[in-house]
Amino acid sequence: MLTVEYRTDPERVAELLPEGAVPASEDPGAVALIWADWQSCGDDFEELLDPVRSQYKECFAVVRCEWRGETWSRCVFIWVDKDFALVRGYHQGYPKKLGSIWMTRPITVGRAGPRLESGGRFGATLAAGDRRLARAAISLDEPAPGPGFVNGHAMLHDRWWPAIESDGTGSMDELVTMRGHDGEVGDVWSGSAELEVFDSPSDELSLLTPEEIIGGFYHRVGVSWKGGTTLRRTMPMEVDGP
Amino acid sequence: MLTVEYRTDPERVAELLPEGAVPASEDPGAVALIWADWQSCGDDFEELLDPVRSQYKECFAVVRCEWRGETWSRCVFIWVDKDFALVRGYHQGYPKKLGSIWMTRPITVGRAGPRLESGGRFGATLAAGDRRLARAAISLDEPAPGPGFVNGHAMLHDRWWPAIESDGTGSMDELVTMRGHDGEVGDVWSGSAELEVFDSPSDELSLLTPEEIIGGFYHRVGVSWKGGTTLRRTMPMEVDGP
Amino acid sequence: MLTVEYRTDPERVAELLPEGAVPASEDPGAVALIWADWQSCGDDFEELLDPVRSQYKECFAVVRCEWRGETWSRCVFIWVDKDFALVRGYHQGYPKKLGSIWMTRPITVGRAGPRLESGGRFGATLAAGDRRLARAAISLDEPAPGPGFVNGHAMLHDRWWPAIESDGTGSMDELVTMRGHDGEVGDVWSGSAELEVFDSPSDELSLLTPEEIIGGFYHRVGVSWKGGTTLRRTMPMEVDGP
Amino acid sequence: MLTVEYRTDPERVAELLPEGAVPASEDPGAVALIWADWQSCGDDFEELLDPVRSQYKECFAVVRCEWRGETWSRCVFIWVDKDFALVRGYHQGYPKKLGSIWMTRPITVGRAGPRLESGGRFGATLAAGDRRLARAAISLDEPAPGPGFVNGHAMLHDRWWPAIESDGTGSMDELVTMRGHDGEVGDVWSGSAELEVFDSPSDELSLLTPEEIIGGFYHRVGVSWKGGTTLRRTMPMEVDGP
Repeated sequence: MLTVEYRTDPERVAELLPEGAVPASEDPGAVALIWADWQSCGDDFEELLDPVRSQYKECFAVVRCEWRGETWSRCVFIWVDKDFALVRGYHQGYPKKLGSIWMTRPITVGRAGPRLESGGRFGATLAAGDRRLARAAISLDEPAPGPGFVNGHAMLHDRWWPAIESDGTGSMDELVTMRGHDGEVGDVWSGSAELEVFDSPSDELSLLTPEEIIGGFYHRVGVSWKGGTTLRRTMPMEVDGP
Repeated sequence: MLTVEYRTDPERVAELLPEGAVPASEDPGAVALIWADWQSCGDDFEELLDPVRSQYKECFAVVRCEWRGETWSRCVFIWVDKDFALVRGYHQGYPKKLGSIWMTRPITVGRAGPRLESGGRFGATLAAGDRRLARAAISLDEPAPGPGFVNGHAMLHDRWWPAIESDGTGSMDELVTMRGHDGEVGDVWSGSAELEVFDSPSDELSLLTPEEIIGGFYHRVGVSWKGGTTLRRTMPMEVDGP
Repeated sequence: MLTVEYRTDPERVAELLPEGAVPASEDPGAVALIWADWQSCGDDFEELLDPVRSQYKECFAVVRCEWRGETWSRCVFIWVDKDFALVRGYHQGYPKKLGSIWMTRPITVGRAGPRLESGGRFGATLAAGDRRLARAAISLDEPAPGPGFVNGHAMLHDRWWPAIESDGTGSMDELVTMRGHDGEVGDVWSGSAELEVFDSPSDELSLLTPEEIIGGFYHRVGVSWKGGTTLRRTMPMEVDGP
Repeated sequence: MLTVEYRTDPERVAELLPEGAVPASEDPGAVALIWADWQSCGDDFEELLDPVRSQYKECFAVVRCEWRGETWSRCVFIWVDKDFALVRGYHQGYPKKLGSIWMTRPITVGRAGPRLESGGRFGATLAAGDRRLARAAISLDEPAPGPGFVNGHAMLHDRWWPAIESDGTGSMDELVTMRGHDGEVGDVWSGSAELEVFDSPSDELSLLTPEEIIGGFYHRVGVSWKGGTTLRRTMPMEVDGP
């Protein structure tokens, strides 16, 4: 994973929060834009041997907020390059769209890439609809205790689906939380970062324009996921017809 | 659109119906496998000038059933090649996955394709996960009043989403119906058809193995969609915590 | 096919010509940027029923030049989305790269697209390396005798391949000409056009910046190709070793 | 890189050799089918920060032959997923086509993948034209001195291009050799392997049907390439016209 933490206008963060939540009191405009190159499987590990069904990349923007006295992380935008990850994301409250995601990989032999060492330089890009949405570059400085502070809380996500009547009424309207378990983290490095975010008529990442870079991170992570918790469910109208 | 209508084992159809529905009493094993190459837009037509956001292809399997005294069409499998169509499909109760969909286009000049005339031959293929799932070929015979009988009723779809607890409880669980309006149909041709369906560890189309071909169709269609009707909504448990 | 004809700085055209050729004396800065959505097959028409091997889209820039007393068209940049078309292009002297090409299609039923009639509006885009390279929009005015004047001559192309020594010596170095036969053209419309061309570190289309739009065209074409003519072949050094 | 070495009918190997070459006298039917996930750049390393222009995957089949008293490796089929690698391959004599290539990656944290240790299992697949062409699985046993014996000699490749006349005459017709320099190899493991190869109307890999598996390998490699040597050049006819 490659992470760029930066500050945007806290008003932009506030506009993307669920009802009742406010930006974190400390560093309210902090954003983490994270690129991840995953290998994923179910309990029988079957997909690992058919990697077209196992590997995917994603890029996502995380902010923090306060709600009911706690601080949460919240994914507000996310692009992914496989359908199984997109739909699983909807289950978890990630508002996924398809995108083209690329990130430099570290190497251990040869010269065509950075090493995991001071001075190692990594690039990352995001595109959707044949348009570049973001470009980042990270230069590693030193090992770090963790990959930043923005994506470190339990997630506070909406799971929302309108009624098929498409008249503004809701069908599923939930506030949920989730986090992985059995997480294992390795090779955490911090460093400096550059980030450019570009406008697009069909994507909203540029709402979170970078105003100041906080830093960049590289790390590896393995994590399992079993389920989350529904915090608030707004009940729709009961129907039994025709 | 290219349509192949065929018969499979009616038991396979029955297994894919919602609770309370049964296969149509007449021709219960009938299936329509339909390839479509769409251009799509919102009310302001804006996407039409940025066609990467407007054009998509899909392939879907439709069966018929009886429920509460009426006959319905039901899409049981569907693959599409753009995310906006995938997610809109979830709103409408189409169980969409990503796939690679190809279909021969008719031509009006030159020789590299069929004409819309007797003898015109069209091919269509579907793949997902780097595997071919279906291959069809259609030979046009004559103009026809309509493109088959399987996909002609209002749709009976599930809209279902499990709770994030992932413990078997449901969150959204609806039976809905929908159909387009302002439909305009042109250039309907019927003919003979071939169809092969292939196994895959990650897709289920081969549950509906072709046992007998009914026929093939070509047609063009334009249609608008505004919303559908929730027929039955199973209420989840109310939640307000923590 | 969608064509935008425009004028760029004639110096930019001159830089892209083979040795001995000069820009056309009349309208030397004229460029045609052409989007095409093809269906293609060999003599046995087999690929037409497996359309993933038959259909491709491309976008290409054509200029004119004078050489040995004649006026030629010359394709200077071209992007295509299938490998069979890319390699066939190398055979014909087209300097093809892969790209993502989209163009609005006309419709005959419904509302989700333009009709082939006055006022019909078409969009077209080109991207490569996850970057937009060009965006065009064309509004049809009236039927026209032909789709512009820039792409109307026999092509003058290089076929060039360096020696594997990669020391600057050439291996194949030819000037060739080619054109299709049995061409059939239909539905030619002219109109007004907009065009934007964007910079990219890995593509050179923006060398031909639009300074003035000439016009836009829609047309359909079918054409066969059998071979071309080698006009000039610079002989490499003979080798027989080791 | 993941390598499966196996034996096919030596007659099939013989049919794919250049004039004058014969299969290796020892183990003449040996084939290496190799999956590679590369990061690639030029002398200024610029592409590494824009990884869509740097990363590519390929799958290629290598056989051995004897020619003029020496033993050579020869790539007879190869699929790649980026255009820059495809065209560079033509320069080097690799007969590249586009394909979809996937291979399991080893991990160092978590559970979603194999470790580089005894028992680690890796999968690899190849598809082209929406059809699976090959599927392999490799189980690591122990560190090994090198990744097999088939792909270990200097390459003997054709560089061939027909004249644009398309009348059977050649334009570029060379036998070349090449190999990388500054090669650095790491993490070589050997083990057992499974391999299935599938028919396709548009690809020829199944000419080299596996009859007996020799073994499987994992390794990492970094290598530079500057150029090769033309061994034999068949001169075309000189042309200077019209």
